[in-house]
Amino acid sequence: MRRPIPSKVIDRLKAAAGSGGFVDDPEAIEAYVTDERDLYHGATPLVLRPNSTAAVAAIVRICAKAGVGVVPQGGNTGYCGGSVPSERGGEIVLSLARLNRIRAVDAANHAITVEAGCILADVQRAADDAGLLFPLSLGAEGSCQIGGNLSTNAGGVQVLRYGNARDLVLGLEVVLPDGRVLAALRGLRKDNAGYDLKQLFLGAEGTLGVITAAVLKLYPRPRETCTAMVALRDAAAATALLARLRAATGDAVSSFEYLNRACLELVIAHIDGARDPFAEPHGDYAVVEIAGADGSRDIAEAALSQAIEAGEAADAVVATNVGQAQDLWRLRELIPEAQKRAGGSIKHDVSVPLSRIPELLARGRAAALKVIPNARVIAFGHIGDGNIHFNLSPPAVTSQGGDVAVFLAKAAAVERPIHDLAVELGGSFSAEHGIGVLKKPELARYKSAVELDLMRTLKRALDPTGVMNPGKVVDGD
Amino acid sequence: MRRPIPSKVIDRLKAAAGSGGFVDDPEAIEAYVTDERDLYHGATPLVLRPNSTAAVAAIVRICAKAGVGVVPQGGNTGYCGGSVPSERGGEIVLSLARLNRIRAVDAANHAITVEAGCILADVQRAADDAGLLFPLSLGAEGSCQIGGNLSTNAGGVQVLRYGNARDLVLGLEVVLPDGRVLAALRGLRKDNAGYDLKQLFLGAEGTLGVITAAVLKLYPRPRETCTAMVALRDAAAATALLARLRAATGDAVSSFEYLNRACLELVIAHIDGARDPFAEPHGDYAVVEIAGADGSRDIAEAALSQAIEAGEAADAVVATNVGQAQDLWRLRELIPEAQKRAGGSIKHDVSVPLSRIPELLARGRAAALKVIPNARVIAFGHIGDGNIHFNLSPPAVTSQGGDVAVFLAKAAAVERPIHDLAVELGGSFSAEHGIGVLKKPELARYKSAVELDLMRTLKRALDPTGVMNPGKVVDGD
Repeated sequence: MRRPIPSKVIDRLKAAAGSGGFVDDPEAIEAYVTDERDLYHGATPLVLRPNSTAAVAAIVRICAKAGVGVVPQGGNTGYCGGSVPSERGGEIVLSLARLNRIRAVDAANHAITVEAGCILADVQRAADDAGLLFPLSLGAEGSCQIGGNLSTNAGGVQVLRYGNARDLVLGLEVVLPDGRVLAALRGLRKDNAGYDLKQLFLGAEGTLGVITAAVLKLYPRPRETCTAMVALRDAAAATALLARLRAATGDAVSSFEYLNRACLELVIAHIDGARDPFAEPHGDYAVVEIAGADGSRDIAEAALSQAIEAGEAADAVVATNVGQAQDLWRLRELIPEAQKRAGGSIKHDVSVPLSRIPELLARGRAAALKVIPNARVIAFGHIGDGNIHFNLSPPAVTSQGGDVAVFLAKAAAVERPIHDLAVELGGSFSAEHGIGVLKKPELARYKSAVELDLMRTLKRALDPTGVMNPGKVVDGD
Repeated sequence: MRRPIPSKVIDRLKAAAGSGGFVDDPEAIEAYVTDERDLYHGATPLVLRPNSTAAVAAIVRICAKAGVGVVPQGGNTGYCGGSVPSERGGEIVLSLARLNRIRAVDAANHAITVEAGCILADVQRAADDAGLLFPLSLGAEGSCQIGGNLSTNAGGVQVLRYGNARDLVLGLEVVLPDGRVLAALRGLRKDNAGYDLKQLFLGAEGTLGVITAAVLKLYPRPRETCTAMVALRDAAAATALLARLRAATGDAVSSFEYLNRACLELVIAHIDGARDPFAEPHGDYAVVEIAGADGSRDIAEAALSQAIEAGEAADAVVATNVGQAQDLWRLRELIPEAQKRAGGSIKHDVSVPLSRIPELLARGRAAALKVIPNARVIAFGHIGDGNIHFNLSPPAVTSQGGDVAVFLAKAAAVERPIHDLAVELGGSFSAEHGIGVLKKPELARYKSAVELDLMRTLKRALDPTGVMNPGKVVDGD
């Protein structure tokens, strides 16, 4: 158990952050110590908001010397409690929000250099201003920060085409747990000069160092985009349809998202203006986006026709303008909001090899209903990446009746069989949301002794005193 | 200095490898202790050729216990001496050649599971048999092994579209320096369950463990391929042309290779049947491949016409059949062979941000000619990745006259200014060939103290007794 932070250390930290660089008013601190899902309520006497890498380094140096835990925080939009301090009050929060400059755009190199605190949407905008595309895109993009995206290896809706956040990084600047700066902001597509050190910090959730800046890949903007919603023959047809579309379009499928009938019904019931784009109900749907050269739409439409002929798809609606495309996307994107309005959600963020998706959906449903017989299975997500948000909503009558608490209390009981199933199918219990605090017990359960030992070895080697985001992901000791 | 390996240990190692699993005849050992470029001549009493992961693990366990160095070896085609033992004879060579099964092809998941000893061309073939593409492609593909490709993070001619070897890996199986097995052969596109341990071993050149198997990404086969050779206005036009082609084709440019006039002349002079595809000489050329949906060729041709109108290109030749495409590719691929025939080569494998390519070429030429005034600058390579093989050939008269040795003796004197220049331009002194033994001094010169310290920290943490590929890349102590 950590001791409270000595006031002399607090003073030194405030001085290092500079005027306007800290928050010590308990009321103002509240927003920094509670997580997005309201699962964790931590405490800290001090939030630091430095606006330079040098100031971050100075702060970490002081903390390392004093043995004070450092909790790096971006937009604080994570789902696993990784960016809030513990309840004990012995850690400081290091907000990167003011380290938010776009340092450089090198259009000829298709690269952008950004500081950790840049809002994801601002990075997208800066790329667009240069006539290029930064493809990372996810629900929280208006408030999440790129440093957090990189620290959690964020996924989102275009992984299929462009990869996870890790894959978009060319170079990195990191403040190490002892306050030294790893300055590796190289904008290189090829560099085999020794170990690729940046990989250590991507997806490490701030437990091995603080990412302060990055060089990111940019891409050409697609010339033509085709958005469609497809009624699938069944869930098993999803992989066949995806393979067909990838092959036909020159691998230009940028999104391939799944939702089952219950998702669509929930959105229609709870979201104003949402309507079923098909005349008849279907069991399984995909929202698909193909983005490529001129002519991509014709190619995509031809492939969708062939999919209907082949029986993979029952029907398809192709958007003919941006408004229609947005309407189709809303049916997918508003599922989490509809779940909130329907009384809360039991969430699973699992992935499996694409070939095991049908089994995951069928056996997952059976396993969930065994625990909560009248739950609604709200299965949706990035099926093109094998990633399903296998969520549950309370039965319609419950959400009106009010005993949602009874439903939510069964979360732990249903989580175990769903995670067991995903791992049995060669999958992961945490596809894109990470570990944080929430999934530490799952990490211990599902990873092999060798994997856990290697993770601890890394933590000990890079952060021997354990000051970096203590208690998150893995403990060195 | 390591002691000779005790005969009792030799016996135990032979037993672990099984009958047919080792080579101890000094003459037969020769092929395993000399490198591709004939720069290194090591020694060992024993080459082990196990045919299972369990046997690899048993061998490494014995070596770890006895303090015997293990030199993992794939196809032994590397350029930096990373896969041959030292001259002292105290290390064993661990050949992965017999660990060469394709374990599984999961077409629905676009993935293949292969053992480390599979020849790269065999992996390509297995993918093709499943109607899919494994895109890693490089000169040595007929003899290099996938384990070596992954351990050196190989590049090749399709990095622009598909990434380096690292980017093609979903899962990995690794024998650790103490003989434990990291079993992480997951075929997942998304998995944020703790640190991404596989990243440690990719590109580590066998210094942190032995890769024994991998799950690799497969891609749809392109429906239509357009191969062209473009005469550029100048080297600076290459990045503009590339950006134009990427944008027009929906980012379907799979290769974008540069060669200067001297390369073309060298190939024409030394390779039977090679001829200049253009009526007039030009200073700079690109060999370009666009691979995508039906209609890709028309789109590419239109974009090339626009590039000529815009003045980026002076002329372009588009292959109209496979034979013509191969002829164009030969002009690029046979440059190294032509250099051999022209009397040897001084090689540099540098990369810079694409925006700095013109400066690299111009200042590199000046720097090289200052050291060897009559050298021929043979600059070619993967310019789409910022990677130039900035090579030198002896002057034509020298290669006939015979004092090539005088030329080659200046390699060290010219290497320094070229590497200095690349690093000054934000680049790397080793873009795709790695470090091995050859470039260890460069690593020490160009990497920061923080980077070197982190590399040593990793080496010490994962291989505390220093048995894995001793003396390569970085030393723990």
